[in-house]
Amino acid sequence: MAFDRLIENIVKMQNPTVAGLDPKLDYVPASIKEKCFEKYGKTLEGAAAALFEFNKALIDSLYDIVPAIKPQAAYYEMYGWQGVKTLCETIAYAKSKGMFVMTDGKRNDIGTTMEAYATAHLGTTSVDGEMIDAFGADALTVNGYLGTDGIKPLAKICDEKDKGIFVLVKTSNPSSGELQDMKLDTDETVYEHMGKMCEEWGSSLMGKYGYSAVGAVVGATYPQQLAEMREKLPHTFFLVPGYGAQGGGAEDVKNAFDKNGLGAIINSSRGIMCAWKKQDGMTEDDFAAAARNEAIRMRDEIIGCIGKINN
Amino acid sequence: MAFDRLIENIVKMQNPTVAGLDPKLDYVPASIKEKCFEKYGKTLEGAAAALFEFNKALIDSLYDIVPAIKPQAAYYEMYGWQGVKTLCETIAYAKSKGMFVMTDGKRNDIGTTMEAYATAHLGTTSVDGEMIDAFGADALTVNGYLGTDGIKPLAKICDEKDKGIFVLVKTSNPSSGELQDMKLDTDETVYEHMGKMCEEWGSSLMGKYGYSAVGAVVGATYPQQLAEMREKLPHTFFLVPGYGAQGGGAEDVKNAFDKNGLGAIINSSRGIMCAWKKQDGMTEDDFAAAARNEAIRMRDEIIGCIGKINN
Repeated sequence: MAFDRLIENIVKMQNPTVAGLDPKLDYVPASIKEKCFEKYGKTLEGAAAALFEFNKALIDSLYDIVPAIKPQAAYYEMYGWQGVKTLCETIAYAKSKGMFVMTDGKRNDIGTTMEAYATAHLGTTSVDGEMIDAFGADALTVNGYLGTDGIKPLAKICDEKDKGIFVLVKTSNPSSGELQDMKLDTDETVYEHMGKMCEEWGSSLMGKYGYSAVGAVVGATYPQQLAEMREKLPHTFFLVPGYGAQGGGAEDVKNAFDKNGLGAIINSSRGIMCAWKKQDGMTEDDFAAAARNEAIRMRDEIIGCIGKINN
Repeated sequence: MAFDRLIENIVKMQNPTVAGLDPKLDYVPASIKEKCFEKYGKTLEGAAAALFEFNKALIDSLYDIVPAIKPQAAYYEMYGWQGVKTLCETIAYAKSKGMFVMTDGKRNDIGTTMEAYATAHLGTTSVDGEMIDAFGADALTVNGYLGTDGIKPLAKICDEKDKGIFVLVKTSNPSSGELQDMKLDTDETVYEHMGKMCEEWGSSLMGKYGYSAVGAVVGATYPQQLAEMREKLPHTFFLVPGYGAQGGGAEDVKNAFDKNGLGAIINSSRGIMCAWKKQDGMTEDDFAAAARNEAIRMRDEIIGCIGKINN
């Protein structure tokens, strides 16, 4: 199961965090942009080339201390198919460095269409018998609003190809409660119901460390709900956004972990990508070194809170 | 507002239907595939070129009688960034023929990330001041599980750029009820609550025919819920999947329309793309002519049921 590999990476590095690669062009230093615009013009191709340079430098700076990256599909799509090509190249580059890659696409659909998404992001596409990985990530975030029909096609690929998914359960944004916190007449909330479905979907996809291939996204901005969910969903691995730029700290996320320090991975995106802005004497050209400093600080802060991680 | 343009297309053609372009390589005739594989090999590039040829022939055959296309992003992503390039080219080609383009991406996220999706699919991307449409569709399907934070960034672009969105409310799949039909303690179901949010989100984006830029996806496979929703959501334009291959017929969808025959557009994907299989004497090379026959049959069946459409 995919999360076994992720868990082994986390234990080896003693670091339960993931670097979110959500590269807006604004975050890329002028020196990189100028070089790419000179070659390709101020075009989507030029922008996409600049994003790839930026991502490569971040990966080079992080891969030996951070177990995983989480590229957010939206920021690549913003630069057209050229940007999507950069997503593809970023995934391949991170994997070549041994990183675990979670594509944050929050994809959702049903039946054959969901199979197409599963094939695209986690599986292998047949071109008249030639088998090709279209994107080749290790895990994908998905939205479970459509129910089991939207998850089953992914479960099959998780099983066959050793991959994982993270289902949105309780997101980190202020308005997440408008639907997710509503009480059902079964006396559970919508997000609790979604969490329960994750346990069910994962029950036939169990890994060797007690976590299934069906994980959940649970925001750091709701620490109490993190604790509740950790208790109620013992086999569901959590991807926790909202640390850093969105306001959550180590104390807020510690409830996401089990007694062995497993069961969750904490994401930071802007906090890592734009770390140079908060470090003395750093300029934008030092973004990669600053990202490493911040990744170490974040790791040490969280490990300081939860202790040594064991599998 | 974007749905004003769609409504005007529908009235002019007296056809409230949209052709879903969800092209699996299996649907493309051997003659097209062979030509593309000869040029590009059995690669993602070759597959993407074949899909574009297929789509162009369908658009050429439909654009004067069908007001809109709905490409499903999953089937393009399945062929990598090369497939996503075909999505981009398909949108541009359909728009050049005057068609209204709805990208079916069911995208969802929050804040700046949702802004990135909105910019990607409906807006204009800035590359250091150069303004470029990355995908340039007229409308996008979205998933509202994250609440207002996931919809507001789209509303802004709908307003400024004359675009529309369709929020998933009640989907057409068998398991859609697992979450969507659950009763809240307010005595409404999850999908009713989502529908009510659509009316609220759309209230400041009203078009001249009484429908806002915030539409809803409501499946044809639940005719009774279509009727209820039509009554309860008077300003919300419906995109109705599930006609044809998924089992719904004209009688099942007529409840989606208001008394003027407005308020909904009915999608058929496989029913159109693979129409040759159900028509006597047709071979796969006749797919475009067969698609036109089926589009006319579908139009006439629905208009026969709902009568002349007036705006």
